[in-house]
Amino acid sequence: MTKRVYNFYAGPATLQYKALERAQKELLNFNNTGMSVMEISHRSKEYDAVHKEASNLVRTLMRIPDEYKILWLQGGASTQFYMVPLNLQQKGKPMEYVNTGAWSKKAIKEAKFYGDVNVVASSEDENFSYIPKNVNFSDKAAFAHITGNNTIYGTEWQEYPKTSDNVPLACDMSSNIMDRVIDPKQFAVIYAGAQKNIGPAGVTLVIVREDLLDRVSENTPTMQKWKTHAEKDSLFNTAPCWAIYMCKLCLEEVKNLGGIKEIEKTNRKKAQMLYDVIDKSNGFYKGHAKKDSRSLMNVTFNLETPELEEKCVKEALEHNLVGLKGHRSVGGMRASIYNAMTLEGVKALVDFLKEFQENNS
Amino acid sequence: MTKRVYNFYAGPATLQYKALERAQKELLNFNNTGMSVMEISHRSKEYDAVHKEASNLVRTLMRIPDEYKILWLQGGASTQFYMVPLNLQQKGKPMEYVNTGAWSKKAIKEAKFYGDVNVVASSEDENFSYIPKNVNFSDKAAFAHITGNNTIYGTEWQEYPKTSDNVPLACDMSSNIMDRVIDPKQFAVIYAGAQKNIGPAGVTLVIVREDLLDRVSENTPTMQKWKTHAEKDSLFNTAPCWAIYMCKLCLEEVKNLGGIKEIEKTNRKKAQMLYDVIDKSNGFYKGHAKKDSRSLMNVTFNLETPELEEKCVKEALEHNLVGLKGHRSVGGMRASIYNAMTLEGVKALVDFLKEFQENNS
Repeated sequence: MTKRVYNFYAGPATLQYKALERAQKELLNFNNTGMSVMEISHRSKEYDAVHKEASNLVRTLMRIPDEYKILWLQGGASTQFYMVPLNLQQKGKPMEYVNTGAWSKKAIKEAKFYGDVNVVASSEDENFSYIPKNVNFSDKAAFAHITGNNTIYGTEWQEYPKTSDNVPLACDMSSNIMDRVIDPKQFAVIYAGAQKNIGPAGVTLVIVREDLLDRVSENTPTMQKWKTHAEKDSLFNTAPCWAIYMCKLCLEEVKNLGGIKEIEKTNRKKAQMLYDVIDKSNGFYKGHAKKDSRSLMNVTFNLETPELEEKCVKEALEHNLVGLKGHRSVGGMRASIYNAMTLEGVKALVDFLKEFQENNS
Repeated sequence: MTKRVYNFYAGPATLQYKALERAQKELLNFNNTGMSVMEISHRSKEYDAVHKEASNLVRTLMRIPDEYKILWLQGGASTQFYMVPLNLQQKGKPMEYVNTGAWSKKAIKEAKFYGDVNVVASSEDENFSYIPKNVNFSDKAAFAHITGNNTIYGTEWQEYPKTSDNVPLACDMSSNIMDRVIDPKQFAVIYAGAQKNIGPAGVTLVIVREDLLDRVSENTPTMQKWKTHAEKDSLFNTAPCWAIYMCKLCLEEVKNLGGIKEIEKTNRKKAQMLYDVIDKSNGFYKGHAKKDSRSLMNVTFNLETPELEEKCVKEALEHNLVGLKGHRSVGGMRASIYNAMTLEGVKALVDFLKEFQENNS
């Protein structure tokens, strides 16, 4: 029997078990080619079918309209932090950002290399424990940018803000892409490192409205332009084939489970189970995020003392519940419960947390 | 019995079978963690050990001195095409390139975004069938750049050129890194997409002399600077963990086989076997590369007619010899025989080619 644990890492994170099993099964001989997926040319018809199907799955599952391109790039969201302003900037127009945490700040830092940035709203005043309300973007901005979910703080936009028709909205959905049904047309650009809610580390999904691809200056190095990748279906250069293949396998499982609509139901149930433990603990567990900003993906909470938190993380590990230590900016604990985390895993964590409270109150 | 073929793809390419077997074995449960390598945090001690060992293997196998940093980046050599000039340029100094084929040209194109480029030598006059001799780099250049091996044309530097002490030499070794013993001190920067001679696609090895890291302008987006990655041991952001893990497994096999010195012996034997078939074929097989520029890694040749070439590729496939179609710029056939290609694989190809000649002369 293969040893497996419940993995609550914030990313890279747990993946769909069936996807892993299939990857293992065909690792030495993919599709009867006599080669591993890692060994076949990115120009071969066998890989091309994988590549196309991965994109098709994204398009179908998220109901992405035809006028958007689906790109598989490298370099993580950190690379998109500069690619977004580089590709969307317009002379004389400010770029507008909402600051909801560490990742927003990093995005803002990179945008400043390209021009003036207005931070139109921020929750820094309360250690990013909430998502700002009634954000007003100007209709004079080159584009607006938000972070969909804040892994470190456990906050998430419940309803995404609107921008004027002429202001493209870009969203870093690295940690909450596909966690619930959204209307993609509300966004001009959606990007996400794969390693939280899509697949393994090493590939970044970028969904971009086609009419924006021509904004970029001609005088831009080839690899920095979305347009380069869009024109070649993300095969301008060698793609990270294995990572895309794994995304395909994982997204097939999402599809098999009924698509994002069903995943959303499970995600809401999973999150509710954990927030219930917190809310009913009489203050033994203290949630970091305000109730109206709680994330479906990262449940962050503190205990009375750092010592008790350490004890909790340690005992959890003894129960095969892994990766629960919170980020140093918030301390405490964090349970990342992405799409691939099962109800069973969350149940095991809930049982443990209740027991731990009983034993330590 | 798992079906396997002999895979002569130019990259992604064949990998060490033992590395693949091990990856398969521990795919669901790495190092008794109960998780896949793809699922563990890039900040975990388990992944960190993999990451460090991959770098150690590069350093030991290539005998890289301490004053060089070993980086694992994303975006392929295509991304380094702009990162090299971006990180090495100096105001008022030209950048000097040798043009030995399609990849050199791409590198030159990106350098032009950053300043004046001198192409100090080129073999374009004879369809890149040779490596220029007696290349003279100026001592006034910001840096010099060469392409170590030209996959498409099957040419390779036999002896690398020298630059003045004050002119750093950068080399794209994507398709011939570790194919033979070299003196790394001759280079300031060595870079290589992993997917030919190191591991799978999705990670790029960059070896850079530490004193050059400060050349880059402060006003550069974070991810574009080698310095960012050097300071964080390539963990500034989430690394492509699986790809680096696979590189580690593959390089362990190189080490087990006796290191690069032994690999070089085998590589020379493999290449010689194929060039002998060409040279003794009475013109049935015509090598593209001039004899003094022949690559150890990519053996390129043509047959009398495109029809005969097509027939040869097709019949090879029936003998489980895969990926032999040449690049459209040269036509004909190309056998890529990277470090992971076994002597047995080359023998099988040699036997087939001899038989094909007998049957079609």
